[in-house]
Amino acid sequence: MSISLAELATRLGVPWRGAAEVALTHVAQLDQAESGSLSFLGDPAYRPYLATTRAAAVIVKPSDAAGAPVPLLLSENPYLTFAQAAQLLHPEPEVVGGIHPSAVVDPSAQVDPSAWIGPLSVLEAGASVGPRVFVGPSCILGAGVSIGADSRLVARVTLCAGTQIGERALIHPGAVIGRAGFGFAKDGERWVRIPQLGRAVLGDDVEVGANTTVDRGAMRDTVLGHGVKLDNLIQIGHNVVVGEHTAMAAKTGISGSTQIGRYCTLAGAVGVVGHLEIGDNVHFTGMTMVTRSFKEPGVYSSGIPAMPSADWRRNVARLKQLDTLTRRVKQLETLLANMNATPEREESEWMEP
Amino acid sequence: MSISLAELATRLGVPWRGAAEVALTHVAQLDQAESGSLSFLGDPAYRPYLATTRAAAVIVKPSDAAGAPVPLLLSENPYLTFAQAAQLLHPEPEVVGGIHPSAVVDPSAQVDPSAWIGPLSVLEAGASVGPRVFVGPSCILGAGVSIGADSRLVARVTLCAGTQIGERALIHPGAVIGRAGFGFAKDGERWVRIPQLGRAVLGDDVEVGANTTVDRGAMRDTVLGHGVKLDNLIQIGHNVVVGEHTAMAAKTGISGSTQIGRYCTLAGAVGVVGHLEIGDNVHFTGMTMVTRSFKEPGVYSSGIPAMPSADWRRNVARLKQLDTLTRRVKQLETLLANMNATPEREESEWMEP
Amino acid sequence: MSISLAELATRLGVPWRGAAEVALTHVAQLDQAESGSLSFLGDPAYRPYLATTRAAAVIVKPSDAAGAPVPLLLSENPYLTFAQAAQLLHPEPEVVGGIHPSAVVDPSAQVDPSAWIGPLSVLEAGASVGPRVFVGPSCILGAGVSIGADSRLVARVTLCAGTQIGERALIHPGAVIGRAGFGFAKDGERWVRIPQLGRAVLGDDVEVGANTTVDRGAMRDTVLGHGVKLDNLIQIGHNVVVGEHTAMAAKTGISGSTQIGRYCTLAGAVGVVGHLEIGDNVHFTGMTMVTRSFKEPGVYSSGIPAMPSADWRRNVARLKQLDTLTRRVKQLETLLANMNATPEREESEWMEP
Repeated sequence: MSISLAELATRLGVPWRGAAEVALTHVAQLDQAESGSLSFLGDPAYRPYLATTRAAAVIVKPSDAAGAPVPLLLSENPYLTFAQAAQLLHPEPEVVGGIHPSAVVDPSAQVDPSAWIGPLSVLEAGASVGPRVFVGPSCILGAGVSIGADSRLVARVTLCAGTQIGERALIHPGAVIGRAGFGFAKDGERWVRIPQLGRAVLGDDVEVGANTTVDRGAMRDTVLGHGVKLDNLIQIGHNVVVGEHTAMAAKTGISGSTQIGRYCTLAGAVGVVGHLEIGDNVHFTGMTMVTRSFKEPGVYSSGIPAMPSADWRRNVARLKQLDTLTRRVKQLETLLANMNATPEREESEWMEP
Repeated sequence: MSISLAELATRLGVPWRGAAEVALTHVAQLDQAESGSLSFLGDPAYRPYLATTRAAAVIVKPSDAAGAPVPLLLSENPYLTFAQAAQLLHPEPEVVGGIHPSAVVDPSAQVDPSAWIGPLSVLEAGASVGPRVFVGPSCILGAGVSIGADSRLVARVTLCAGTQIGERALIHPGAVIGRAGFGFAKDGERWVRIPQLGRAVLGDDVEVGANTTVDRGAMRDTVLGHGVKLDNLIQIGHNVVVGEHTAMAAKTGISGSTQIGRYCTLAGAVGVVGHLEIGDNVHFTGMTMVTRSFKEPGVYSSGIPAMPSADWRRNVARLKQLDTLTRRVKQLETLLANMNATPEREESEWMEP
Repeated sequence: MSISLAELATRLGVPWRGAAEVALTHVAQLDQAESGSLSFLGDPAYRPYLATTRAAAVIVKPSDAAGAPVPLLLSENPYLTFAQAAQLLHPEPEVVGGIHPSAVVDPSAQVDPSAWIGPLSVLEAGASVGPRVFVGPSCILGAGVSIGADSRLVARVTLCAGTQIGERALIHPGAVIGRAGFGFAKDGERWVRIPQLGRAVLGDDVEVGANTTVDRGAMRDTVLGHGVKLDNLIQIGHNVVVGEHTAMAAKTGISGSTQIGRYCTLAGAVGVVGHLEIGDNVHFTGMTMVTRSFKEPGVYSSGIPAMPSADWRRNVARLKQLDTLTRRVKQLETLLANMNATPEREESEWMEP
């Protein structure tokens, strides 16, 4: 793949400066660029690299263009333009339709002729694979699974019976979608399984990371809306509904029947308990423990940042006495007030609810 | 599957009221029920739905039966009765014995004629599969693995060499059982692996979730007792012993050589360090960090619930000074005591140990 | 396998005492040992077992040798010597070269004749497998993957395109190495994927646990140095670099572009945010939340240990008011100071920065 600066600018719909015919073959960081490289300048901290880069062209904000010694693409959002350019320069290989002879395909499965079914994959009864879908090696499509056009199952994806995948999905190795969720009634000391009769239903443009698990619903569906992006090793419990364009980083877990809004971000290893309602545009920082609903947009956090272990031991010992400490302070305040030495502060500043 | 109210009541051993012949075909929630639906009323909060439900029949407590406009099944534990009814109405398909021609089965493996070995599964030397066992597609049974009657490996389960599975187990896709555990001796700067010679031994009625990992023991076995239920993405370290009917929610991890008692529940993402002893009937709430043994029954917790990030930053900054703050309060108390104004509280209330 | 005490001592390079010809066939714990067992005494707490053990021989420190009633191997590091002895007594079976007929091997893949490719494994174009490599059942080696001599892929390992594995690696089932990392630019409300063009590059003697995920780099490589040991269910983000001989316990996660030094240990479920720099010889205890760089050697911690839930609820309620409580204490101090009763302590002891 090689494309001229001028043609790339046209395809991206952005202005350019410099040699129209310079050939771009790949993307690279500013400080690692060489002949043929397209780079970008996002964070102003990297501006010094612009003077010395060997990139063939660089995507910059118009306000960073002055004096740049290389051909430029101009964009108000260089990182986004870079992502789009990278997709053009490094396209996924086109899917060549066909079924590998080692795949095991039930006669009732429907595979679009333009779709690829990789080696050692299994398609069970009634599975349906749309146009230009790529099913990599060793995938399992259970009975009644449906995959929309242009989706990619990289390799070793397990879609349990009934799972519905929209268009342009990207599912990474080891993902297990549509597992019967974790639901039991108690019979004395024993657990009795509740049949899980819902499905896992994923919208268009959804991404599911490696070894991530998405359980099917119990009596309704588990739903990931359009554009949801899940990183690796995430757990989505049964009946969970995730709104459109919400993204979750690795190792996050959402317990059963919780609803997550649209445009949310959950950083790594966040835990959300079940049956909550999280609104749109809610953002949780890494390792946050979410034990109640948050319906208002905002950024929420919890957890204690790392400190030297000796300090930590001292502080957590005190933390176990924090309720007592608070009472002691209140007592001191009362005592002093009784000594006619009332504190000179606003009561409301610290009054407990 | 269709069953009359009267027959279902007989099979469940519970009383019923209303039209004996009403046909039940499936379970559904009260508010989503329709013709043929069997629903249940557990949480009293849903009682208003009882008046308007379109369910064909509803399982209720006898105390909720008065005035209900639909046929009823009466149970002191509606949720349990519902689970049992759901299993009757939505049975697992019967296992049809046989070995898919694409499976790779060592000649020394023993497969009961009533068991099914799915496509592209691998049975290594000496593996043993009991009656009516279902081995789904792409499972791996290592050398010497044994699986008891009526167990189900949904798909893509890995049982490493020597793993023993009891009867009626349910193992979900991506589970890896019997991996050689994480044990090393230090040789200067290098790690030297300790051979892991024990097995993973699972009792009857055990469930293992998707992408959960259970390591084999080092010199003895890792053991999951009868009725243990593990959700997805759980880690069980080598030599761990889990008592009967203990359940763990997703993303929990148990470090090596820890013993967990019977009838415990570990909510999601709990972490338990190694070499501890947890008693029977111990319950940990979500994301609890367990750093010492808890031998007494009870509910234990840790972690900080989410709050707005600005508040969180202020509070954790203070937390790092909590030991100091406690000392400051003690100093104030001493000072006031010296001013002959002793606090009017019980010393014992807050005295530190 | 059976080896005499004298021969084992020679091969391990340690002194011995007792019957030269006693036959050792396996390792076992002191209290479970029997005829043929080799045991070790590490922790002095187990010294009483030495008097009654039925082991054929025991590895002890020279200072523990006096009066022991069994043949001995003497070592200043009994656990290390035990690990080495266990590897001799319980060797991995020798790899027999060949390719199982059910494997799907691209004609352009290069497999050393001494390597084994197991049943139902897939080798894509240009994959390269070195001498005496063991590729267990159902592994996937993507295009251009390279595996160095004497490495073992136990079973069901996924190496995505371009992944490089050094010599003597040990990769456990379910591991996914070289997945395209989690990188997006924002286009209004939508996420636009950034092509991930780097590789995952693992040094020699690296171990990767079951269902662990190691993402490929975005524009450079993700790198695990020589001797790195990863337990199960770990996430390594794109562009991460892990220094030599660093070990991580299960469920730890390292976010993108973070660098971890050499000789570090990360206990279970540690979380490290992205773009940090962690120095050599840094140790994090279990469940630590790492939100800033730690360049100095040391032990670091965070998190709240479990306590009875009732206590926890009281204390975390107070924790949310900790900033306010700190201000209240300061006010009391000011007030008392104004009463001419200045505290008798060093200001610097608790002055805030």
